[in-house]
Amino acid sequence: MAATRGRSGGRRSKAAAAPLRFGPALMARLDELAGITEVPGQLTRRYLSPAHLAAKARVEAWMAEAGMRVRTDPLCSLFGRYEGRAGGAPAIMLGSHIDTVIDAGKYDGALGVLAAIAVVAELARSGERLEHAVEVAAFGEEEGSRFPTHILTSSALTGAARPALLDMRDADGISVRRALAVAGGDAKALRACARKRGEIAAYLELHIEQGPVLEEKGLALGAVTAINGSVRFRVTVTGFAGHAGTVPMVSRRDALSATAEMLLTIETLAMSTPDLVATVGRIKALPGAGNVIPGRVEFTIDMRSPDDGVRRRAAKTLLARLREIASRRRVGLDVETYQENPAITLDAGVIDTVAEAIAACGHEPLRLPSGAGHDAGIMAKLCPSGMLFVRCKDGVSHNPAEAISVEDADLAVTALLEATRRLDRRLQAAG
Amino acid sequence: MAATRGRSGGRRSKAAAAPLRFGPALMARLDELAGITEVPGQLTRRYLSPAHLAAKARVEAWMAEAGMRVRTDPLCSLFGRYEGRAGGAPAIMLGSHIDTVIDAGKYDGALGVLAAIAVVAELARSGERLEHAVEVAAFGEEEGSRFPTHILTSSALTGAARPALLDMRDADGISVRRALAVAGGDAKALRACARKRGEIAAYLELHIEQGPVLEEKGLALGAVTAINGSVRFRVTVTGFAGHAGTVPMVSRRDALSATAEMLLTIETLAMSTPDLVATVGRIKALPGAGNVIPGRVEFTIDMRSPDDGVRRRAAKTLLARLREIASRRRVGLDVETYQENPAITLDAGVIDTVAEAIAACGHEPLRLPSGAGHDAGIMAKLCPSGMLFVRCKDGVSHNPAEAISVEDADLAVTALLEATRRLDRRLQAAG
Repeated sequence: MAATRGRSGGRRSKAAAAPLRFGPALMARLDELAGITEVPGQLTRRYLSPAHLAAKARVEAWMAEAGMRVRTDPLCSLFGRYEGRAGGAPAIMLGSHIDTVIDAGKYDGALGVLAAIAVVAELARSGERLEHAVEVAAFGEEEGSRFPTHILTSSALTGAARPALLDMRDADGISVRRALAVAGGDAKALRACARKRGEIAAYLELHIEQGPVLEEKGLALGAVTAINGSVRFRVTVTGFAGHAGTVPMVSRRDALSATAEMLLTIETLAMSTPDLVATVGRIKALPGAGNVIPGRVEFTIDMRSPDDGVRRRAAKTLLARLREIASRRRVGLDVETYQENPAITLDAGVIDTVAEAIAACGHEPLRLPSGAGHDAGIMAKLCPSGMLFVRCKDGVSHNPAEAISVEDADLAVTALLEATRRLDRRLQAAG
Repeated sequence: MAATRGRSGGRRSKAAAAPLRFGPALMARLDELAGITEVPGQLTRRYLSPAHLAAKARVEAWMAEAGMRVRTDPLCSLFGRYEGRAGGAPAIMLGSHIDTVIDAGKYDGALGVLAAIAVVAELARSGERLEHAVEVAAFGEEEGSRFPTHILTSSALTGAARPALLDMRDADGISVRRALAVAGGDAKALRACARKRGEIAAYLELHIEQGPVLEEKGLALGAVTAINGSVRFRVTVTGFAGHAGTVPMVSRRDALSATAEMLLTIETLAMSTPDLVATVGRIKALPGAGNVIPGRVEFTIDMRSPDDGVRRRAAKTLLARLREIASRRRVGLDVETYQENPAITLDAGVIDTVAEAIAACGHEPLRLPSGAGHDAGIMAKLCPSGMLFVRCKDGVSHNPAEAISVEDADLAVTALLEATRRLDRRLQAAG
């Protein structure tokens, strides 16, 4: 109730004060983009799917309409460039991603790309040129919902994406390499994705918060300070399959019952550890017939924390507990780490700039960490990077119920434009 | 250790006493039939799959070679008939099924069909005709591993299979009706599967025990007294999907964590209830991405007991506990009963006949209930029915490790032949 009061109170006074310049058009485009999906009736747009490529074509048209020169890189990331006062100047990159999770919301990723286009469109409309070029990025793969990685396409800008990543396969056995060939990308030119030092002066990403903090504080925007570290495990539990009717309970080595105990242990540990979340998002029991005791179960664990030490200690404790369960239940246990990202502190100068822009818009500039990973966490390795968060209804994300208000969307574009101008001056002053 | 000692002791003395007449040939055919599979490297032969139809063709050839007249009914069950002294006499039906679970063993179902063919082949070889015809049945669907039912094809003989069953769909959305059309069956002629009262004088099914009882007692064969009742539930748990990195643990309504608690409750209840087993063989978490909190989980529960009262009381207790978990965790719970089979007492006369036949072979005639469901449980509605169990290595079934010994296979055919002759006389005497 407090959050709702704070929110509508803040919104009403603003709405009365000024008409909305950017919000309605931005929300309409977000709705339109959300209609481009692999699965009718839900938004699912995985990297290099026909829906991803169709969304990319739509975004490309909007970039061109906003006065940008557009190009696609070998991994099918899309970049629109709006030159500064002098041609060929280093760029401030604004961007996010246009792939989605399975059964996604409309705002995760797309909001940041379309808000950035709105910022450039406003600069172009008023004929305003900055010292830096403004480049808008629409990354193709951030979620990792198709291939067993994530933040692949922005990694390529830093030169960190290794060719071995191209051999990863999706659930249908299709490799990144093969999917790129079908999509018109160019796996062989992976190295050409890398940007030179200095070519991108700073990276700024606007994104829906995907959590409840801003809403609970009654604030529309926040300046992101850091991105939580994460680790992902692939776990296999091996028991012994058997007939569901004839094997006495005491004789069973049921891989799924053992897994159930492990899942509760994971939940209990995360519940009792401050600054830690843990999630089992995928599970598969084999052979998978109702009348057969599962002989094998495969599942994933995703653990995150802003504190790498907390996360690593928790993972160690967890693995010991899983081993104890496996041993007691006489099942095999195999745990493979398939992804690990350390926590990332964003650039102090960019954080300050974002906070100042929020304040200049008349709002309290809350600073907060991000619970989710973002392209900004990768880009931080290449250039000073920061993020601007937008309030998320009920803290719900990766879900069709994900929502923002049109007033917040409007304010987000205004603040992003303000932050871009301020960043341009700050970077120019720093030389 | 005791079981192993008892077994090899019993086997060695028999093996020394007489050469094996039926065992080696039967084992060779079982191996050959196990090579006919949908999935290379494992035995999976679901109803109406190309592998099922290929296995049926092989069995048909063996039936014809043994002197039987063969026909296929509209649901693709296969029947071979060996006439009695007078043509058109009522039949003693010997049989089992040739479909399998996913990643099955070689003996479940196939053993009973091929042993029955060996019995008829021996009668034909020696020119022996009984008062009754002998009909060998190879049912097509007993396991329910493709469609959400089981024991479908034998049900049709009793007239109990309703046309609505033909609309059931497999995991790929293919209906029984459609699969029958592709396989050369005839859904419209479902009624023609039904047998008239008196046409089948008795049904006798030889089957691998699929449990540890005979092995523990050091016995090769057993006379089955009853078939455990069972119930199957389809459970849907509805929580709320969300981002794995941003939703605090305390705010989650994770459908999979709730399910984990339910699974342990199911296991605990079955462990603490005598004469009850419960199994969760299938589970699906949605949307099924590593970085998304599951918003929905679907799973099955299979509960069995020789005592319908025990099973019904346990189910009632279980559902109350699941509801408590769902309520406490703020998730939705939907439980649908999709199959229920009461416990079945087999025919006293057939049980006695089987026990006498085992004794006539020089073995102790143990009487025991069956933990698994069988076609005999359905056939018992149509005619006096019984079963002969064969010892199962380590009690393992529905698993590639399922095994019997060649000595036990040999003895099984001898005992089945003996039981068939005795049943013929007993039925004739009862007139």
